[in-house]
Amino acid sequence: MPNQNTQQHKLRQQKLKQAVDARIDAAKQEKGLVLVITGNGKGKTTSGFGMVARAVGHQQQCGVAQFIKGTWDNGEKNLLEQLGVEFHVMATGFTWETQDKNADTLAAQEIWKQCQRMLQDSLLDVVLLDEITYMVTYGYIELEEIVAAIESRPAMQSVIITGRAAHRRLIEIADTVSEVRNVKHAFESGIKARKGIDW
Amino acid sequence: MPNQNTQQHKLRQQKLKQAVDARIDAAKQEKGLVLVITGNGKGKTTSGFGMVARAVGHQQQCGVAQFIKGTWDNGEKNLLEQLGVEFHVMATGFTWETQDKNADTLAAQEIWKQCQRMLQDSLLDVVLLDEITYMVTYGYIELEEIVAAIESRPAMQSVIITGRAAHRRLIEIADTVSEVRNVKHAFESGIKARKGIDW
Repeated sequence: MPNQNTQQHKLRQQKLKQAVDARIDAAKQEKGLVLVITGNGKGKTTSGFGMVARAVGHQQQCGVAQFIKGTWDNGEKNLLEQLGVEFHVMATGFTWETQDKNADTLAAQEIWKQCQRMLQDSLLDVVLLDEITYMVTYGYIELEEIVAAIESRPAMQSVIITGRAAHRRLIEIADTVSEVRNVKHAFESGIKARKGIDW
Repeated sequence: MPNQNTQQHKLRQQKLKQAVDARIDAAKQEKGLVLVITGNGKGKTTSGFGMVARAVGHQQQCGVAQFIKGTWDNGEKNLLEQLGVEFHVMATGFTWETQDKNADTLAAQEIWKQCQRMLQDSLLDVVLLDEITYMVTYGYIELEEIVAAIESRPAMQSVIITGRAAHRRLIEIADTVSEVRNVKHAFESGIKARKGIDW
């Protein structure tokens, strides 16, 4: 490798390090975060569970509510529940399987009560509200109830919201928002959903 | 709730269920997947680890190579290594910390050897190549070596690639590609990176 190239690389990396260090120094505020992972691509729920796994790896306490995936064999639940994560799963499963709005609303309200309790529990470092965005879209849970519960949570608690089409109010109250855009998906090419990857 | 509303909902959900079922029936091909999670937003690495956690929850065997995060206290490693996940972490840490291209190339090549072995190991159901995209960008690992290793892997093994600016060749060989777009990030508002969320 030519020396000039190495030297250029070193200078470039020094500049990058200075910029990153300056931003780390500037970021002083300690508080729990609200994260929204939305969009139509694969990776929203797994990202939420990746953060929960990470928090568990730091001996933090976590609570999870899963609003959509219910009745399947559930890899993340199998693993994390036995590690002490509090888990609530909406019993009815995919809402297009049930086709019953009244029953779905009742089931959503049942699990939402558990969420409200978790969002007041200062022993929980991280609360994951997996696919709760659909509950707002379908009108099963009041948007403003969710906003109020999140805004009055313990100051150091972080909350992760996943699901497509997050309401703009949820985006507004979030500290970090990522949109997962579908570039391509195996399912569209006729490849079966896969244990360990898709559920 | 008025009956008409309930009935409309039921019809809409039936139609949705028919569409979803038809796509599930059409998706017949069983094989390991290549997934790329790229883009500039938060959630790529956590999504990869969420899939690994999910797979571990199904008693699958997983291997992980982490190319960027190295020297920090590492929540995902703490958790998953003790659960039997094979873990390789590039020892030099963030590349803008080291500022030494030769040392970084050596460190990258070291861990890449482990990856090549994992990508030939039919006992591994899932292999996560976390932030390997940067190794291509910086020229530490040959793109075509990565492509060749992935394309000749065991047929049922799934591979997850994360990192910004995935090379278009990696996009081409992938079955599923998501781009995580940064909508907003707490760091930009001066909020400190948080244990359990950011590392």
